[in-house]
Amino acid sequence: MLPDHVTLVDVGPRDGLQNEKEPVSAAHKIELVHRLQAAGLREIEVTSFVSPKWVPQMADNREVMDGIERRPGVRYSVLTPNLKGLDAALATRPDEIVVFGAATEAFSQRNINCSIAESFERFRPVVETAHANGIKVRGAISCALGCPYQGEVSADEVERVVRLMKDIGVDHCGVADTIGVGTPRKVQAAMERALRHYPIAEVSGHFHDTYGQALVNIHACLQMGIAIFDASVAGLGGCPYAKGATGNVATEDVLFLLNGLGIETGIDLDRLVDAAAFISGVLGRKPVSRTGNALLAKRAG
Amino acid sequence: MLPDHVTLVDVGPRDGLQNEKEPVSAAHKIELVHRLQAAGLREIEVTSFVSPKWVPQMADNREVMDGIERRPGVRYSVLTPNLKGLDAALATRPDEIVVFGAATEAFSQRNINCSIAESFERFRPVVETAHANGIKVRGAISCALGCPYQGEVSADEVERVVRLMKDIGVDHCGVADTIGVGTPRKVQAAMERALRHYPIAEVSGHFHDTYGQALVNIHACLQMGIAIFDASVAGLGGCPYAKGATGNVATEDVLFLLNGLGIETGIDLDRLVDAAAFISGVLGRKPVSRTGNALLAKRAG
Repeated sequence: MLPDHVTLVDVGPRDGLQNEKEPVSAAHKIELVHRLQAAGLREIEVTSFVSPKWVPQMADNREVMDGIERRPGVRYSVLTPNLKGLDAALATRPDEIVVFGAATEAFSQRNINCSIAESFERFRPVVETAHANGIKVRGAISCALGCPYQGEVSADEVERVVRLMKDIGVDHCGVADTIGVGTPRKVQAAMERALRHYPIAEVSGHFHDTYGQALVNIHACLQMGIAIFDASVAGLGGCPYAKGATGNVATEDVLFLLNGLGIETGIDLDRLVDAAAFISGVLGRKPVSRTGNALLAKRAG
Repeated sequence: MLPDHVTLVDVGPRDGLQNEKEPVSAAHKIELVHRLQAAGLREIEVTSFVSPKWVPQMADNREVMDGIERRPGVRYSVLTPNLKGLDAALATRPDEIVVFGAATEAFSQRNINCSIAESFERFRPVVETAHANGIKVRGAISCALGCPYQGEVSADEVERVVRLMKDIGVDHCGVADTIGVGTPRKVQAAMERALRHYPIAEVSGHFHDTYGQALVNIHACLQMGIAIFDASVAGLGGCPYAKGATGNVATEDVLFLLNGLGIETGIDLDRLVDAAAFISGVLGRKPVSRTGNALLAKRAG
């Protein structure tokens, strides 16, 4: 039984543009968020509050958050890996914050220079402070289906991180296939571990299309009743572990699937393609989206 | 219950290269077939016997068929839309021939300039002659999930063509999503109609990735036990109905899915990527395959 309604969280402005080499102005980022909410997106990951030394692409985080004309019913989230980031973010009134832990020690060490357990000890006060300010905390597990350093990742390793998240009070558990190597059986095994500790309304999937498997994995999750997915307009983001390969699944492609299945999202495909065409124009290239390109080709032809 | 073993039919040399504007030499086509069989493909759609006035890309059909070093256990098929084509094909000893009918009158009229019923009357002697020569006949239903002229296509329309195929003795029923608009429920409804008239071992799916839905549709078929799929190495082919959009699903992407599901195919992914890199080099561009590009990026990086 598939869900009747699915929520798509567009992570393009943050997770997408963070990985784009070309600098994108705050004004263009704000315009992208406006176009996404006009298309009907109800959750948008806007920016991150990380040191601009590490992520210069998001140095305009405050300007972007302050520049958005917020719509009632839309939730705006930001990535805040530590208390310093959260303190800066609080002034911009996000609806949710996002924290990331890795499923493997190898990725945790190389990506954030500490063990998995240490990363969650750092998140603990972030979660407490967010909650004290009435802000929901979304957690995400990187490399839940495979790791660029370790290779295979077991469901036990995923569940270990799910427990750590739950222990420190993270409200929502996202399972992320950072390098896109997951296929349906492995995805369902990982999701099953998340569902042991979180209600289905607080479990989501974040899939990359590096090997073309994102939609089939989303469909496998839908068949379990999971109804929240990250996606990135125009497939913004790329893959930092294989230059030139595809990264985040494109929101347009996910929406085409959901529309075909008769699942409600509240999102208008034509206006979403407008948003994809807008940001792709800013970046000077075609969307990395099968549906986006097909519909733009039809419009042109 | 998914099948233990799946047969992939690589249609790249015929369905793929037929739609490529760049001329490809017979020697390169023969080399592509050799690389595909070296990778473990056991069914290859090699060429078509159609008037070179209509399909100049396949004018070298005889040279290609005669130039292949055939391997035991590999089946070589050719497209033969009429008796004249079949007569020419017979001299090249194909293992199978392929005939195409459309699911809609609009597509049949515009594509082959006759009604659906008329097209099957033309196929009748082709099937008889093929059988008299000990050659199997694969039928395929174009536009089974959507038509560029009519729009939506019903399962009843699909079943009508399945019956016509069965009536004239076609051995195998392929259901083809020519414009790539299918999604799992519609695909399963169409397949269910094919399965009313053909045993599951003689039903296959042919999916296009124009809207990114090919793998999710293949997975939906696998869940019904269907175990034969067309695919095109490097995603060769494009989409004649949306210039610049994706066409045939890439064999590499399908194989990544099947490998992940633990389904046997006999195909080696690395050697398949070699074949994709070879033909893409001939065409002077990157493969239209997520998996192909990701693995080539990893090799380069």
